[in-house]
Amino acid sequence: MRTVRLALAQLNMTVGDIEGNARKIVDTLARARGQGANLVLFPELAISGYPPEDLLLKPDFIEANLRALDEIRRATAHITAVVGYPAADEYDIYNAAAVLQNGTLVGTYRKHYLPNYGVFDENRYFGEGLESPVFDFGGDIVGVSICEDIWYPVGPPQLQALSGGAELLANISASPYYRGKGHDRERMIATRAADNVAIVAYCNLVGGQDELVFDGHSLVVGPRGEVLARGPAFEEALILVDVDLEEVFRARLHDPRRRKDVELARQFSPQVPRVEAAPLVEDPEDRPPIEPTLADPPEPLEEVYGALVLGTRDYVRKNGFETVVLGLSGGIDSSLTATIAVDALGADHVVGVAMPSRFSSEGSVRDARALARNLGIRLLTIPIEAPFQGYLDALADAFAGTPFGVAEENIQARIRGNYLMALSNKFGWLVLTTGNKSESAVGYATLYGDTAGGFAPIKDVFKTLVYDLARWRNARPDGPIIPESVLTKPPSAELRPNQKDTDTLPPYDVLDVILELYVERDYSAQEIVEQGFAPALVERVIRMVDRAEYKRRQVPPGIKITTRAFGKDRRLPITNRYRYRTE
Amino acid sequence: MRTVRLALAQLNMTVGDIEGNARKIVDTLARARGQGANLVLFPELAISGYPPEDLLLKPDFIEANLRALDEIRRATAHITAVVGYPAADEYDIYNAAAVLQNGTLVGTYRKHYLPNYGVFDENRYFGEGLESPVFDFGGDIVGVSICEDIWYPVGPPQLQALSGGAELLANISASPYYRGKGHDRERMIATRAADNVAIVAYCNLVGGQDELVFDGHSLVVGPRGEVLARGPAFEEALILVDVDLEEVFRARLHDPRRRKDVELARQFSPQVPRVEAAPLVEDPEDRPPIEPTLADPPEPLEEVYGALVLGTRDYVRKNGFETVVLGLSGGIDSSLTATIAVDALGADHVVGVAMPSRFSSEGSVRDARALARNLGIRLLTIPIEAPFQGYLDALADAFAGTPFGVAEENIQARIRGNYLMALSNKFGWLVLTTGNKSESAVGYATLYGDTAGGFAPIKDVFKTLVYDLARWRNARPDGPIIPESVLTKPPSAELRPNQKDTDTLPPYDVLDVILELYVERDYSAQEIVEQGFAPALVERVIRMVDRAEYKRRQVPPGIKITTRAFGKDRRLPITNRYRYRTE
Repeated sequence: MRTVRLALAQLNMTVGDIEGNARKIVDTLARARGQGANLVLFPELAISGYPPEDLLLKPDFIEANLRALDEIRRATAHITAVVGYPAADEYDIYNAAAVLQNGTLVGTYRKHYLPNYGVFDENRYFGEGLESPVFDFGGDIVGVSICEDIWYPVGPPQLQALSGGAELLANISASPYYRGKGHDRERMIATRAADNVAIVAYCNLVGGQDELVFDGHSLVVGPRGEVLARGPAFEEALILVDVDLEEVFRARLHDPRRRKDVELARQFSPQVPRVEAAPLVEDPEDRPPIEPTLADPPEPLEEVYGALVLGTRDYVRKNGFETVVLGLSGGIDSSLTATIAVDALGADHVVGVAMPSRFSSEGSVRDARALARNLGIRLLTIPIEAPFQGYLDALADAFAGTPFGVAEENIQARIRGNYLMALSNKFGWLVLTTGNKSESAVGYATLYGDTAGGFAPIKDVFKTLVYDLARWRNARPDGPIIPESVLTKPPSAELRPNQKDTDTLPPYDVLDVILELYVERDYSAQEIVEQGFAPALVERVIRMVDRAEYKRRQVPPGIKITTRAFGKDRRLPITNRYRYRTE
Repeated sequence: MRTVRLALAQLNMTVGDIEGNARKIVDTLARARGQGANLVLFPELAISGYPPEDLLLKPDFIEANLRALDEIRRATAHITAVVGYPAADEYDIYNAAAVLQNGTLVGTYRKHYLPNYGVFDENRYFGEGLESPVFDFGGDIVGVSICEDIWYPVGPPQLQALSGGAELLANISASPYYRGKGHDRERMIATRAADNVAIVAYCNLVGGQDELVFDGHSLVVGPRGEVLARGPAFEEALILVDVDLEEVFRARLHDPRRRKDVELARQFSPQVPRVEAAPLVEDPEDRPPIEPTLADPPEPLEEVYGALVLGTRDYVRKNGFETVVLGLSGGIDSSLTATIAVDALGADHVVGVAMPSRFSSEGSVRDARALARNLGIRLLTIPIEAPFQGYLDALADAFAGTPFGVAEENIQARIRGNYLMALSNKFGWLVLTTGNKSESAVGYATLYGDTAGGFAPIKDVFKTLVYDLARWRNARPDGPIIPESVLTKPPSAELRPNQKDTDTLPPYDVLDVILELYVERDYSAQEIVEQGFAPALVERVIRMVDRAEYKRRQVPPGIKITTRAFGKDRRLPITNRYRYRTE
């Protein structure tokens, strides 16, 4: 038995809060030591927070990170730590991991594979690492790598295991969430462990950062692909587990395929440098007994809801707000958003505003009131008639002879936006917008009206999923919260008499499928038609999506939960004459 | 004499308009042929437009480009053309140049150096080219490269000249404008020509695309660094010049330094493939005499103004609008923006709106009226008092006991935004916003108020430069246009009695210097203080800039004229706790 006690510090860091992040790391080192941990992993770029974006272009920012690393180094008495930070040499900066032991910087690892797709821009900032060192802790061989490096079957971890003899592959990560990613990642990590016949310890960041949520769900997997420890999703944790490195050697002797891989690696791969360090375990007796952390992964809807709650809470709090305000129309979107906000911040920190117009149904106001009561939040009621009439009077000359239309509809939505922003300016509340992804995709929203605000919790949630989440939340032990009538009445913007969403849009169960194929999967019009949709409908929906690009550039950030969120994940020109045609 | 007639097709392409761009290329080929041109260069990614961004992730978009290339190929009878397009093979897509001759695709070149900084994301899309071929046109050797490739002293053009023997280095480009870039680029191109003792023909794109303006200013430079031809800035042109390739050989025989370079290149550089093709010149007699195109480069303020006019015109027209509307406050920003709009679109396509409030001075309304008269544009006057009083009444309960403050100020600005958007919705006019870079930097603007609109012409223009441009424009032969009182009165938002910008901000000549150091050059607070500014002031300005990031995410695109515009050029997190401190 060569038992090493691992600790995965699945922490919620804040971008730019170098001092705060460093303090958190130092405190966690003390906690881990108290638990008898020998090796503690911290997430990718733990010191700077992730992603620091163009802060990385500021020399003093880099220097502040290096000073913080030095403080952390001094806090590693009797323990070994792997800490992510932006490193620098005379040529460039690097996405790096420092290996610290007993007050000494033993060595560093620089990330090889810099993601530059989707939401990632790492080629913008970092030089590429070229070496795949292993750390020899008195005979215990550990390979260190960073995030993307382990997503490649022939990346640095493989080299470390095959040519370097690493028994433990430690990967520190900041892997942003989309639906089902925890599952995909677990499958990949288990495959890497089994392929390399090694223990893989994967420490992920947790927390919200602008558009992104990092879901945690850190893992330790054994040499046969078996999960030895699993962190919870969407919350901080110090994940503990004892792993036996002897077990790796035993498994390797039983794995004939691996022998061929090792030979190939020795013949064709670059040299693997070996960094000598002190043993990880000073005294095997000096460890209190522990149970390995083994959280259950969340169910699919619970998972999405968890992401939305954490993303909302972190955006609000990390930006220094305490209270949010949002319009309650009595519709499903604002009802779900308010519920998320209460789950994120508590009822005392959420203010609802009902802003009825001459076109609002009685049912809408009643539903808004019932929701506020169920949530236990404060509700303001401010009708929009007075300024609306003011606008109509003031614009009467300019609009003379024109019928009531989109201009008059949008004035109402913009009065509501103006009310919410006025409350925000007056009381320091952050405005949450309530638009969903289906609306945002086709531009079925009023710019500066219902899109006005600081954060958009359900921006990446298709309307059909909005309903699913509302029903899931209502079925929780403390539910139902969202009134049943909200779930059953046909959606309406109520900006003119008897308006329904379906006046303008196809039913959401049709629309959402087309949108998913077009927006997330880049299907052409013809390919969508081949899935069984009418050509005219497909062309109309695509045209709406393309035309709404200018609107999406001016809306607040919201939480990415899909593989392709609007925002930095999908970068299309506004000026764009490309037109899809079906055959 | 081995005289080749070059044509540089400095064209204004539109992103996504593959058919329109292809038609333009085919028409230009006919024009060039009529002028006796032998070799015609088109800009980088001429077929798709530049930058196509995530359109490149759509397979049918790539295929449409390839079909268009095939049509263009068929239009190259008796002429040779270099055309930029997105190429594909079974592995990846590439930023490529096709060499077409007499109906045949002779070969292609793939861009090596993919810019992935500033506004560029080319690593997101393209595989890197690995070869630096030369084209042997019956003894006339031409190297083809793309944009960034020629910015490196040891890039493909050098290899083509030294190892490949290229006498003519053709570079096709889409190089976006910032102040003085034409000058920088001309210096670089001349150095490359002299270093490699070659003729460099550099064909740049012209036109506006969302945030970017491509300035044209294409060049042909001789082997001693002398400019042989220069295209105009900010307009389309077919630039013609006869170049003597014999002259290159003559110059090489006189250049002893080059011999050492050639030896080194032969010893250490990769192989340069040679593609055989027919001679460029079919019949030297069959060319009407021409004068080389030699436009003067614009003066500094003329250059910026030209960028703003072209960027505005192209955004408006390429997005299918005919008329713009903007608020005229009687201030300098809206006055300059209106003047740019009229120069871009004509007075019949610009509508001004005066929206006086209870706090507007008489002078402001008078100045707005005088400006509209000077410009010959329509002016609507729509006071904001009626809806403003409506808001105050409706919010009276919620705001009870609070003093008049930012909330009440912003309501006024947002009524104006709502007016302009209502006019836009009613009449199909595009709203121009009038904010400048100084305001945008420190957040001295009302989100959904004065920032509401589709395009922001002077978004990247510091306030001090706004004044310079206004004075420059007034001094043109058809001026003065902007009333002198607009230039001399102290700037004010007029949202409360006797408000002045300097109540909140330092004087603009101080502010703009600090902003330039911080925003464009990433100086730290301490470094700015060392330039002679008070620490408290520097910290306050930086804090304002950092806090306003959320606002800048929700404003319309505008024209980049500096080395670091807000937008995709400067990507900072909103959630960001990094704080500058002076020592």
